[in-house]
Amino acid sequence: MGRSRLEAFSDGVFAVAITLLALNFTGIDSGKPDLLKQIRDMGPTFLAYAVSFLMIGIIWVNHHVLFAAIRKIDRTVLFLNLVLLLFVVLIPYTTSTVALYRLHDSPDGRVAVAQYALAFLGMSLGFSGIFEWTLHGQHRKEPLPPEAHWPARVRFVSGGLVYVIAFAVALVNAVASFVIIAVVAVYYVIERTPAMSSQDGEADQDDEDS
Amino acid sequence: MGRSRLEAFSDGVFAVAITLLALNFTGIDSGKPDLLKQIRDMGPTFLAYAVSFLMIGIIWVNHHVLFAAIRKIDRTVLFLNLVLLLFVVLIPYTTSTVALYRLHDSPDGRVAVAQYALAFLGMSLGFSGIFEWTLHGQHRKEPLPPEAHWPARVRFVSGGLVYVIAFAVALVNAVASFVIIAVVAVYYVIERTPAMSSQDGEADQDDEDS
Amino acid sequence: MGRSRLEAFSDGVFAVAITLLALNFTGIDSGKPDLLKQIRDMGPTFLAYAVSFLMIGIIWVNHHVLFAAIRKIDRTVLFLNLVLLLFVVLIPYTTSTVALYRLHDSPDGRVAVAQYALAFLGMSLGFSGIFEWTLHGQHRKEPLPPEAHWPARVRFVSGGLVYVIAFAVALVNAVASFVIIAVVAVYYVIERTPAMSSQDGEADQDDEDS
Amino acid sequence: MGRSRLEAFSDGVFAVAITLLALNFTGIDSGKPDLLKQIRDMGPTFLAYAVSFLMIGIIWVNHHVLFAAIRKIDRTVLFLNLVLLLFVVLIPYTTSTVALYRLHDSPDGRVAVAQYALAFLGMSLGFSGIFEWTLHGQHRKEPLPPEAHWPARVRFVSGGLVYVIAFAVALVNAVASFVIIAVVAVYYVIERTPAMSSQDGEADQDDEDS
Repeated sequence: MGRSRLEAFSDGVFAVAITLLALNFTGIDSGKPDLLKQIRDMGPTFLAYAVSFLMIGIIWVNHHVLFAAIRKIDRTVLFLNLVLLLFVVLIPYTTSTVALYRLHDSPDGRVAVAQYALAFLGMSLGFSGIFEWTLHGQHRKEPLPPEAHWPARVRFVSGGLVYVIAFAVALVNAVASFVIIAVVAVYYVIERTPAMSSQDGEADQDDEDS
Repeated sequence: MGRSRLEAFSDGVFAVAITLLALNFTGIDSGKPDLLKQIRDMGPTFLAYAVSFLMIGIIWVNHHVLFAAIRKIDRTVLFLNLVLLLFVVLIPYTTSTVALYRLHDSPDGRVAVAQYALAFLGMSLGFSGIFEWTLHGQHRKEPLPPEAHWPARVRFVSGGLVYVIAFAVALVNAVASFVIIAVVAVYYVIERTPAMSSQDGEADQDDEDS
Repeated sequence: MGRSRLEAFSDGVFAVAITLLALNFTGIDSGKPDLLKQIRDMGPTFLAYAVSFLMIGIIWVNHHVLFAAIRKIDRTVLFLNLVLLLFVVLIPYTTSTVALYRLHDSPDGRVAVAQYALAFLGMSLGFSGIFEWTLHGQHRKEPLPPEAHWPARVRFVSGGLVYVIAFAVALVNAVASFVIIAVVAVYYVIERTPAMSSQDGEADQDDEDS
Repeated sequence: MGRSRLEAFSDGVFAVAITLLALNFTGIDSGKPDLLKQIRDMGPTFLAYAVSFLMIGIIWVNHHVLFAAIRKIDRTVLFLNLVLLLFVVLIPYTTSTVALYRLHDSPDGRVAVAQYALAFLGMSLGFSGIFEWTLHGQHRKEPLPPEAHWPARVRFVSGGLVYVIAFAVALVNAVASFVIIAVVAVYYVIERTPAMSSQDGEADQDDEDS
């Protein structure tokens, strides 16, 4: 199975998952009075929607950057990719749970945000697994020099660490934990993507070759 | 990340969003008498479905025409495209709200159509942002001459202005606002698409090259 | 916009619509006794699911055969294709209505099957519109000779006529109408597809060229 | 119709079906106390989700390996592929039924797991049908030597046999049957995929050629 096929299937899953996020806007009841108030009450739903939308968008970008550097697919990476997707597909559910409990800092609101962080942690572990796999064997088009392995690992693990922290904070304060995740999402959009632009060019050329 | 990948992902989102529109036809209850009456009562649902279907179809066409002219993707346009998609994904929800309030010119019906117009306004702003981005740097395959910038901007902004007007009208009359949006959709299908046919040829050739 | 793009978007819509058909299996309630009886009671749902699944599969095949013969896309065919898709996306809804009324030959059951036939009629008209468009201008790769226009039209119109008959029969007998549609679906699978195999080869070669 | 088109459509169906699995996580009710308990109570739902996710992932991999060896598509294999997809699309429903009855070894729980096994059996029969088709005519790129037909058939039939056994066991013990299916899924991931890696290379090269 070629790399392009794995990417097309993953893109399909990302596209469906990101669109299913909008199924959370189901609270509207025309039997109740005051639609404007109903919409305002969905504030946390819109907020959770926007953050999860951004997150899946970022996962999609990072997925392609990571796979653009891969030379050859094998069964191990197929399985690791399924683990990654398994958590991505959970995001609409964890988002809807956060929205249901309205980002209140109640005991249940904390559980909801903790579960929200856990799905991102699982996704992050999937990414780390795929990255670790690229370091061994002849899996990368241009192998990373051994001295670059640990810095790269640290960068990847620190990405996952954020969600461990968000999970721990959620046990104490739901809102603070959600803010951490939202800030990380915005940070990834603004700061991290440019660092990948050199690899982008590589991926781009590769597209033109095939 | 190549242009084709961004387009494939966006197409996936458009395809899912346009198909989810049909999830609004859920009012049928076999426990209630007279199915024919139930279907007739869904008149506003069918109407809102048809207009939103057309709108997403038009957005899909315009998206490709705009990106066919782009030479190289960067992180800014990835983010702007996510903003555009974020509003597209909201369309099934805003459509279902319009359907729920049955296009009545009640206070709630006006709020529903105002929200409907807002999603299109957000989508339009996303398009304007992407277009503005193409004017700077070396982002277009064939750069627009500077004297063509302002006419092009005016054309884009007037597109968005329609939804500002539709939003304002919705605060006074829900039906009039919906009619404006429907007329704009039909106008785009009939009048605006041919003006893009020269660029279509360009995009087409590009497809054959790759 | 290239032909391949229109096909990819349409394929996305077909894939989502065919998968949403399965959302009709929602009658199961673990609070009620006897799951086996609940499943047996869903007999009409399974039947309607199978027929609609086959129908969307056939539409997908015919869509590609038709577009494989087209040389160049323009705004008219984009719009005609949207009309076709608009009815395809309605199929999960019309299928669920048929399932809800359990194929009973009650007045409401007849309305449900009549609506089911209407969605297929609309889809068929969309196809006829696209086919008519291919006869004019330079739209086909290998133009049909004028003397072949009317026989081809008759073949297309007779396809749509089946759904007019199914609609008329539904007003009298729901089961008979459903049987007509099911038989047509099976007939298309068994008899009509081979007649397209010569064009298949053409489409195939075209794929290899690009 | 080219092979790549059949694969793209099938991939779309797989991607939507695998993502719809997550719609089963709908038990959360913010009106009920103790979210953590509600999530813990969804244990069987998470388990069924993970197994079905893995199964659809495996089906996706096997689908490409099987079709990568096929030289030319005809109407028979299009129809057989639709039969396969018809059962794949049922998986979210059969999974949700298993989750609803919470993997209890009650009479209804046994029916739920038996139905779960039946959908996989139908999918397996679809695969066997496609495989049998590849053995006749000039359908494979590199025809299997006749003496390899029966060993290959035995391997395919034994795959389906597992689901017959799982179905039979489900009539006696729901949990045991579910464990069989889960073990088979894990076995496929760990043991069977490498045996296909030689064909992977073939498919890969083919991708680069086109």
